Amino acid sequence: MTSMNIKPPVKVVEWVGDGQRGFLRLLDQTRLPMEQTFVDCRNTKDVWDCIRRLVVRGAPAIGVAAAYGMVVAAQAIDDKDFGPALTDAGEYLKTSRPTAVNLEWAVDRMIRSAGGLIGKNTAEVAEGLLREAAAIHAEDEAMCLAIGGHAASLIEKSQGVLTHCNAGALATAGIGTATAGMYVAHARGKSFTVYCDETRPLLQGSRLTAWELAQAGIDAVLITDNMAAQVMREGKIDMVIVGADRIAANGDAANKIGTYGVAVLARHHNLPMYVAAPHSTFDLSIKTGADIPIELRGAEEITEGFGKRTAPRNIRTYSPAFDVTPASLLAGIITDRGVISPVNEENVRRVLG
Amino acid sequence: MTSMNIKPPVKVVEWVGDGQRGFLRLLDQTRLPMEQTFVDCRNTKDVWDCIRRLVVRGAPAIGVAAAYGMVVAAQAIDDKDFGPALTDAGEYLKTSRPTAVNLEWAVDRMIRSAGGLIGKNTAEVAEGLLREAAAIHAEDEAMCLAIGGHAASLIEKSQGVLTHCNAGALATAGIGTATAGMYVAHARGKSFTVYCDETRPLLQGSRLTAWELAQAGIDAVLITDNMAAQVMREGKIDMVIVGADRIAANGDAANKIGTYGVAVLARHHNLPMYVAAPHSTFDLSIKTGADIPIELRGAEEITEGFGKRTAPRNIRTYSPAFDVTPASLLAGIITDRGVISPVNEENVRRVLG
Repeated sequence: MTSMNIKPPVKVVEWVGDGQRGFLRLLDQTRLPMEQTFVDCRNTKDVWDCIRRLVVRGAPAIGVAAAYGMVVAAQAIDDKDFGPALTDAGEYLKTSRPTAVNLEWAVDRMIRSAGGLIGKNTAEVAEGLLREAAAIHAEDEAMCLAIGGHAASLIEKSQGVLTHCNAGALATAGIGTATAGMYVAHARGKSFTVYCDETRPLLQGSRLTAWELAQAGIDAVLITDNMAAQVMREGKIDMVIVGADRIAANGDAANKIGTYGVAVLARHHNLPMYVAAPHSTFDLSIKTGADIPIELRGAEEITEGFGKRTAPRNIRTYSPAFDVTPASLLAGIITDRGVISPVNEENVRRVLG
Repeated sequence: MTSMNIKPPVKVVEWVGDGQRGFLRLLDQTRLPMEQTFVDCRNTKDVWDCIRRLVVRGAPAIGVAAAYGMVVAAQAIDDKDFGPALTDAGEYLKTSRPTAVNLEWAVDRMIRSAGGLIGKNTAEVAEGLLREAAAIHAEDEAMCLAIGGHAASLIEKSQGVLTHCNAGALATAGIGTATAGMYVAHARGKSFTVYCDETRPLLQGSRLTAWELAQAGIDAVLITDNMAAQVMREGKIDMVIVGADRIAANGDAANKIGTYGVAVLARHHNLPMYVAAPHSTFDLSIKTGADIPIELRGAEEITEGFGKRTAPRNIRTYSPAFDVTPASLLAGIITDRGVISPVNEENVRRVLG
């Protein structure tokens, strides 16, 4: 079976209805894991709101949502001021999550695409924009499938896989990055167990990864982050696979806090640790992980992360949002363009091409 | 300054009032960290209830509470059937937490003590029992102070200390075990920062350790468990100190889940890791940690630990309550009888004597 017809367990981003007169439907990830509901976006404000409120999250998924959001925006624009009005709508959408690189990238690509449609009538422009958004969507699906194809053989050799946070289908418009190999191997009939770190403070592993894997019928087992070492020691894990937020030229990878600790534990137990990420996650202008800034977050996520205060009033906290796993602790980085292994600058540049 | 006059930040177990006509006052640990309230126990049922509901928890603290509980029980017993009635009360108290070894030990010691008072009048017997309970209390305080004396020099050399779970004053009738050196060093005017792992699933590090250290004016910083690796990597930690639930003859130490992972991280960062525990925690009939059974707990603590469900319905979980840190990862075990270092069976037997 090729990986090309493998679908995610749920449609995270979808264009619904009659061509360019349709609308954008988003899985409401703020309601997970308790409810699977959707939000329909029929105007630019709806789209802005959904990105802002994290109804849709994950860099690739946000990019695809914003692309369709530009089609929704175009539906409300008159012929005569189309160009400036579309640009204004795009600038507005960008303010929904200013730090999301894929958001800006997708909006700008849609505006460039509209520029190539000058002279067409409104319906033709809207059709063209929808084609461009669908292309961004298809590219994201293909990126996930390419990663999944490379990762599947590693998953298939494993009885137990550990993952951290959510680099899953829910973060993309396809089958995810760290999860992609799992969905491909599962579709090929392989059985394996995925241990999901709950991933404090925001519990993405519990709320999102465990949910999406269970939806797909993959055997998912939820653990607290501090159980990973014991689970490895008991021989339950054969490999670790996680996503990344940013990767330096030498392969040092920034990802959700806790990833570096998992990498140290994996090395101690002689288990291979892989990062799965699209080529767009690499920032070759950054030489090593030492140059990746680590965002510090507020106390509340630690002290009242479960909706109830569980820490003393006025207690000091320290809350780095990310950590950097050095390339030396990685067995490989699985990209849509191939697997980088061993992980070093030369191989990063060779595989990314 | 000797360590002999250093007090815990709060009275966890206290006998209040007029000699043997007084009553037992317990800090209500179920209300921490939000409220510092106390429960007064004036009959055997009150004591049973408090032990059952975890108003008082931690093996040493439970033992002291049960000892005073036997004095409370004695207050309600008539002269003529004193012996059998006291034994009945003791057996009843033991049912409050059947697996707590110190509970059984303290009750039996109180019954033996009563046996030595045969022929005295009721008031004299009650006075004798109160003396015995106070002796158990004083021994517990002395045990903590002895550990603190041995640990303080290590704490004093450190800018940053990491601890996991609560092996603190709240678990004893004194200044705790893992925390004892912190209280002694603090009383000597040394300043240092204690990073407290929150310790999922039940958050004893957040609810209890961070609270008691802050009460004492020690600089406590709360982190999620998966931040420990990054905090170590940033050079914020000089040593790790934790408690233990059970230690084998070779020094392998069972403690709250996550301790083993912290030990692996400490080794990777070349940081010394210590266990602090009284000599009574050693079980020399157990040769190595491989023979210590690991209790598995239910899903709810992971999936709805804080009154709100944060995981998918029907998700599988795996929840070991403890893990075993091999002696090879420990720089030393700090006991009330001295420091075992390097940790091996010969040194365990030599120091315990």
